[in-house]
Amino acid sequence: MNLITLTTDFGTRDWFVGAMKGAMLNVNPDAILVDLAHEVAGGDIRGGAFSLMAGYPFFPKGTVHVAVVDPGVGGPRQAIVVQTANYFFVGPDNGVLSFALARERIKSIRRLENEDYFRKPVSRTFHGRDIFAPVAAYLSRGVSVEAFGPALTEHVTLDWPEARVQAGKGRIEGEIVHVDRFGNLITNIGAETMRMFGDKPCEVFSGNRRLCPIAPFYGAVSAGRPLAVAGSTGFLEIAVNGASAADWLDLGVGDEVNVRPWIKSR
Amino acid sequence: MNLITLTTDFGTRDWFVGAMKGAMLNVNPDAILVDLAHEVAGGDIRGGAFSLMAGYPFFPKGTVHVAVVDPGVGGPRQAIVVQTANYFFVGPDNGVLSFALARERIKSIRRLENEDYFRKPVSRTFHGRDIFAPVAAYLSRGVSVEAFGPALTEHVTLDWPEARVQAGKGRIEGEIVHVDRFGNLITNIGAETMRMFGDKPCEVFSGNRRLCPIAPFYGAVSAGRPLAVAGSTGFLEIAVNGASAADWLDLGVGDEVNVRPWIKSR
Amino acid sequence: MNLITLTTDFGTRDWFVGAMKGAMLNVNPDAILVDLAHEVAGGDIRGGAFSLMAGYPFFPKGTVHVAVVDPGVGGPRQAIVVQTANYFFVGPDNGVLSFALARERIKSIRRLENEDYFRKPVSRTFHGRDIFAPVAAYLSRGVSVEAFGPALTEHVTLDWPEARVQAGKGRIEGEIVHVDRFGNLITNIGAETMRMFGDKPCEVFSGNRRLCPIAPFYGAVSAGRPLAVAGSTGFLEIAVNGASAADWLDLGVGDEVNVRPWIKSR
Repeated sequence: MNLITLTTDFGTRDWFVGAMKGAMLNVNPDAILVDLAHEVAGGDIRGGAFSLMAGYPFFPKGTVHVAVVDPGVGGPRQAIVVQTANYFFVGPDNGVLSFALARERIKSIRRLENEDYFRKPVSRTFHGRDIFAPVAAYLSRGVSVEAFGPALTEHVTLDWPEARVQAGKGRIEGEIVHVDRFGNLITNIGAETMRMFGDKPCEVFSGNRRLCPIAPFYGAVSAGRPLAVAGSTGFLEIAVNGASAADWLDLGVGDEVNVRPWIKSR
Repeated sequence: MNLITLTTDFGTRDWFVGAMKGAMLNVNPDAILVDLAHEVAGGDIRGGAFSLMAGYPFFPKGTVHVAVVDPGVGGPRQAIVVQTANYFFVGPDNGVLSFALARERIKSIRRLENEDYFRKPVSRTFHGRDIFAPVAAYLSRGVSVEAFGPALTEHVTLDWPEARVQAGKGRIEGEIVHVDRFGNLITNIGAETMRMFGDKPCEVFSGNRRLCPIAPFYGAVSAGRPLAVAGSTGFLEIAVNGASAADWLDLGVGDEVNVRPWIKSR
Repeated sequence: MNLITLTTDFGTRDWFVGAMKGAMLNVNPDAILVDLAHEVAGGDIRGGAFSLMAGYPFFPKGTVHVAVVDPGVGGPRQAIVVQTANYFFVGPDNGVLSFALARERIKSIRRLENEDYFRKPVSRTFHGRDIFAPVAAYLSRGVSVEAFGPALTEHVTLDWPEARVQAGKGRIEGEIVHVDRFGNLITNIGAETMRMFGDKPCEVFSGNRRLCPIAPFYGAVSAGRPLAVAGSTGFLEIAVNGASAADWLDLGVGDEVNVRPWIKSR
């Protein structure tokens, strides 16, 4: 499997992503390189972890996923490769891989230590190019994870803010975990959690401020009206038909929302 | 022909384009994926249609062009594939394909209905990943358009604002249809229309405000001076040598301009 | 070697880069196309030259590097291909190739003149698509540089601002040559120049304003504190741990900095 995806905070203004790709193609000229996301905010490990989680499952089995949001580069943080039942994940061990790994069955975690698989000299500021890129390319050539370094029993995980089912209050409490380019507000409230309401029509609130009804698709409400939909990442997502919900509702990452059944008299 | 191009309003901040590519590579691991434009303004069908029209003809015969600017996703708008003499076009039937199709000889239009060629489950918000990407990948593997669904006799078209030759007034009236990243103002006045002036030197006006002469290339006027050139899309384009015409002339999409022969005494 | 890299100021908002890739794939369907940088500021030849220099060496021997920052397109500036010991470089002869070429052993410089290798008709505003793209693709197919046009003995070079070793004052004087997406300030002070200080701890100044110590990696100082590191391009780089040095220190391209040994009593 020659397929490698890249998720970074390197942006596309500079040559950083290009240099990583060059380093990969030096090792495996047949590698197929696909950008997942590069405009993760600088140093935003959580944002990178979310983008990776949202994008990785759509790739063929055996794909190597590299994620480099690495503010601790050059310091004591470790570099790892993780083999799961379906994929390989390569990156700094700072949690950027952890949201994706939480959804995978982990088979092996290895510390990247064998310098035979690094580009030399290894800089202190750009392990994306000097360590993660060549390691990913060797993986894509079939080098087994054992070759890269000693086994680890765990990896750094970020806390995922679980949505809370408040059965007594008849509501689900969650928060906004991502704002996408359209200004849609992606929450942490998953489709399976929503099943507690069965087929009842529901509404989304910010505290006690009524935000919008849940609807099947964007165009189910009039242009300029807010709604919540079952989003493409599996989470409830607040949108405004034809506009930015982030702007119109003045909400962002970390803001709490809750879902309640629709009550006519409210 | 394994070549697929992508034109979307998904931006590059999120994982949307990457997820589409993963879905394509799942179906056709040999697909070659080329980005045409992803920073079309959110929901700007006309902007997407223009970008597709401007970029598609430079690809080899047989290329599959996917365009997803799809504010009506999940609603009643249809999804289509169009086979022309040279290419395949895949996208929502909302006009985003129509400027390109107006320049092609259409051989077949099919509604995308056969779920065998969809990724499942199909979300209500991301048909780019769940319908258009896999369909494009199947097309690139040689599946014929008949397989995807029933024939249609027409598709949705956007009005193209035709430039008007005002022979009596001795002028051509048109408007600005795109502002590019340099701030160049691309008009709807095509090269063939301009032939009415023969070899006469001409000038461009906004109403009766004289904007600039027509010149052969950017550097034909001094730095900081405006000019109009025969642009690379086949349309007359207003530029400022070394600066943004949009900023300097304070003009944008929809603003009217007209071309007149240069008169010494004016 | 089917590998071609692209460095341009075309941005990713429009179809320009996509059209170049289409023109390349028309000539060589097996070409592997890698973006190096497209968000070079419009017309910023020096910025393009720096990005190319920073990214090109990480690609396999034989790679074709195309750089198109070309405000003089359509005018008298020449178009060239340069073969070096390791690579091919294609672009306008305006200096955009020169920082990279200064690090390579040049074997041949040719003017692009043979229209057999151009896309026709050749526009006056987009030689990226009509000349540089097809020429690069023919090179990637193995066409030798002699085929493209007559030999030249020189090419246009931009002045590189060399850092100055002021042995008498015990300092190195340089300037900022690039600000990256993180706000890191990349200087022109190379690793080998820094050797004059041996193992002495050093500090960076702006005039006589003390900016920061030199440290081994970003996390070697507290969050929010400035430091300078040996950057991944081989140059000293001023950063702020977890923030933008450009914003915090209010410095940018062209601003002078100097390095002095650390003195306790200062």
